[in-house]
Amino acid sequence: MTNAAENESEILGRRQHLLAPTYQLFYAEPLQIVRAEGVWMYDERGRAYLDAYNNVPVVGHCHPLVVEAMARQAGTLNTHTRYLAEQPLQLAEQLLATMPQEVGRVIFTCTGSEANDLAVRISQVVTGGSGFIITDFAYHGTTHVTAGMSPEGGGPLGAGVYTVPAPRSISDVAAFGEQVRGCIERMRHSGVRLAALLVDTVFSSDGVRTHPVGLLASAVHHVHAAGGLFIADEVQAGFGRVGEAMWGFQRHGVVPDLVTMGKPMGNGHPIAAVAARPSTVAEFAKHRHYFNTFGGNSVSCATALAVLEVIRTEGLLENASRSGEYLRRGLHALAERSGAIGEIRGAGLFIGVDVGTNPVSGLSGSAEATRLANGLRQRGVLVGTTGRSGDVLKIRPPLTFGLEHAKLLLEALDETLHRP
Amino acid sequence: MTNAAENESEILGRRQHLLAPTYQLFYAEPLQIVRAEGVWMYDERGRAYLDAYNNVPVVGHCHPLVVEAMARQAGTLNTHTRYLAEQPLQLAEQLLATMPQEVGRVIFTCTGSEANDLAVRISQVVTGGSGFIITDFAYHGTTHVTAGMSPEGGGPLGAGVYTVPAPRSISDVAAFGEQVRGCIERMRHSGVRLAALLVDTVFSSDGVRTHPVGLLASAVHHVHAAGGLFIADEVQAGFGRVGEAMWGFQRHGVVPDLVTMGKPMGNGHPIAAVAARPSTVAEFAKHRHYFNTFGGNSVSCATALAVLEVIRTEGLLENASRSGEYLRRGLHALAERSGAIGEIRGAGLFIGVDVGTNPVSGLSGSAEATRLANGLRQRGVLVGTTGRSGDVLKIRPPLTFGLEHAKLLLEALDETLHRP
Repeated sequence: MTNAAENESEILGRRQHLLAPTYQLFYAEPLQIVRAEGVWMYDERGRAYLDAYNNVPVVGHCHPLVVEAMARQAGTLNTHTRYLAEQPLQLAEQLLATMPQEVGRVIFTCTGSEANDLAVRISQVVTGGSGFIITDFAYHGTTHVTAGMSPEGGGPLGAGVYTVPAPRSISDVAAFGEQVRGCIERMRHSGVRLAALLVDTVFSSDGVRTHPVGLLASAVHHVHAAGGLFIADEVQAGFGRVGEAMWGFQRHGVVPDLVTMGKPMGNGHPIAAVAARPSTVAEFAKHRHYFNTFGGNSVSCATALAVLEVIRTEGLLENASRSGEYLRRGLHALAERSGAIGEIRGAGLFIGVDVGTNPVSGLSGSAEATRLANGLRQRGVLVGTTGRSGDVLKIRPPLTFGLEHAKLLLEALDETLHRP
Repeated sequence: MTNAAENESEILGRRQHLLAPTYQLFYAEPLQIVRAEGVWMYDERGRAYLDAYNNVPVVGHCHPLVVEAMARQAGTLNTHTRYLAEQPLQLAEQLLATMPQEVGRVIFTCTGSEANDLAVRISQVVTGGSGFIITDFAYHGTTHVTAGMSPEGGGPLGAGVYTVPAPRSISDVAAFGEQVRGCIERMRHSGVRLAALLVDTVFSSDGVRTHPVGLLASAVHHVHAAGGLFIADEVQAGFGRVGEAMWGFQRHGVVPDLVTMGKPMGNGHPIAAVAARPSTVAEFAKHRHYFNTFGGNSVSCATALAVLEVIRTEGLLENASRSGEYLRRGLHALAERSGAIGEIRGAGLFIGVDVGTNPVSGLSGSAEATRLANGLRQRGVLVGTTGRSGDVLKIRPPLTFGLEHAKLLLEALDETLHRP
């Protein structure tokens, strides 16, 4: 073995002896990453990988302005929300400025799981209901209650959790609403009172379902008519990823009662939040306390403020639109030359590509999607797979991903499709 | 109004318009803190406050070695556990080195709530049980399931959650075990299968119950005999706070199945973990996945490694023992001169002081405890209150709190007791 291979084998052994076997690694040949910058990650041999997968480092890995803001605040003060402080207020102000005016209050947490868990608690207390509607391959978190709303994780559904199929048609704008209406009917027949509809507004784990624009409108209408709340899970879709808007729900012309956000919020630093209509959280506060030790701490807020500033000053929504559009056009061109590429969906820099049968490799569906992800990794490009059948390529790079990076990705994919 | 008072009033107004009303502030006259260093916090007027309350900045506010380690890693790489990396392995190694050898695996989360929530999930899956025993004024977190195990928060208990009184006698080493044994009997009669006993090993919210040493042994024996697991919640007790040991459970001579930790782990940075017996998490992993995006990320782990290093190199366990002992002796001396001070409990730098009737103020119990906390704040010393009746002073400073700081606290308390 080479030194690098020995090192990887040694690290794998130590993982087995130190970490719980719940941990999983990416790729048939796992990657040891030692540093990263912008859209590039580097392994211990110094080899560069183009990151077309990680949405968390939304403004690029190790952005100097974000690191500096974090370090400066960490050297000055890091404390909680039970003292008066500027940082959480400034952050709440800037977040709410990106939302519809009906959404007017913020509660900070540390992870998207905690944000969704809290949104669930708020929905139960405010509506008196216990029924939740999610999509049938959703992912909403790792806590007890959110794991029960995450069929992607493989565990059992929680009590009162009902599923609907994720949107399939990219043209029928009312189809998803009909599914939700039918589900509310089923709940009513079972005597379960609706608390909320909880959806990832780009339906990431369901295979990236972004179209038709407006598909959430009738669903939200039916939920409100039945006395339920609409929770927009923006943990994956939020912070400009969809390009044309800061939040995924804005593409569909709906106003949520609760908005949850996380992953990209601190560019890797653990910060997340729930934004809500004032009346909703006022009702919750009558019945429950909520305090999160690290939620809204000085350093996390300073970090998230720097992320928002970089998104604005570097024009990352515009870049996401431009690079995403370029990528989708390139993917369509590849599809014309390879039967392995089926439907191409997405908005901004969140793209899902259905994988069919590749006559060159003789593989199809999830086997071909896995081969493509591993083949791209060998060629120095990082993507993932998703969807109920694992047959969707997930392309979701930092929002600083430029046209030159999109070109590299398309070239590597072309090669992987045609040379197994 | 002075400029500072105007500023505070303006901040209060903005909080009301931006944050949910679930947020609460400390003290009748809330503090605006703008910077902190070591055991000192500073308000916007530049006034210094001796921090005898905050356990999160365990190695002192803004410790330069911790800030530097965090900033260095944040400028190099911040990614998740699905790539191979050194940082989580080094941290797991160092944490497990402080544990009994039976505890051999780690799973990283971001908050103590997430750690307790995961420990609950693991207990349910591994035992097949749904019954949990907690103390009757426990606090274990803010997620849906841990809030249902946190009567201190005021919400309803979750399904299958049973309570026992926290230890009251400081001499009867078997009393708590008898309560737990009786509770297991009650569960059995109700047809509920025991999953776990979950206790904070210093019973913080129950009023700080640290004695007699060994009080957990018979309880854990009964739990294991009934097929349940023992979860040691070390979120408050851990990382050397009890002085004589790294973890609270070690004072009682027991070996947990699951150990949860959080608050001080990153000196304010959101990192937490579950440590477990290998067989326990192996069984869980057969049935469930677990992935936490930010859990075990490079920066959080580098930060926690720096905290562990400072705890060792600055001898903070020894300091906690020395300063804690000095404080308790001083409190006993005060108790001889003031009827307001009752029982004094604690280990290391976690101290609970029962507050009785103060003839000087004419107040007693929680009213006097609140007066003392606010009076100390006016005198520049920060402490809190706790316990079911709110009549216990909670003294829980950073572990760098020295004898000179203890002396300042005792002098300020003496004055507050005798000059209302």
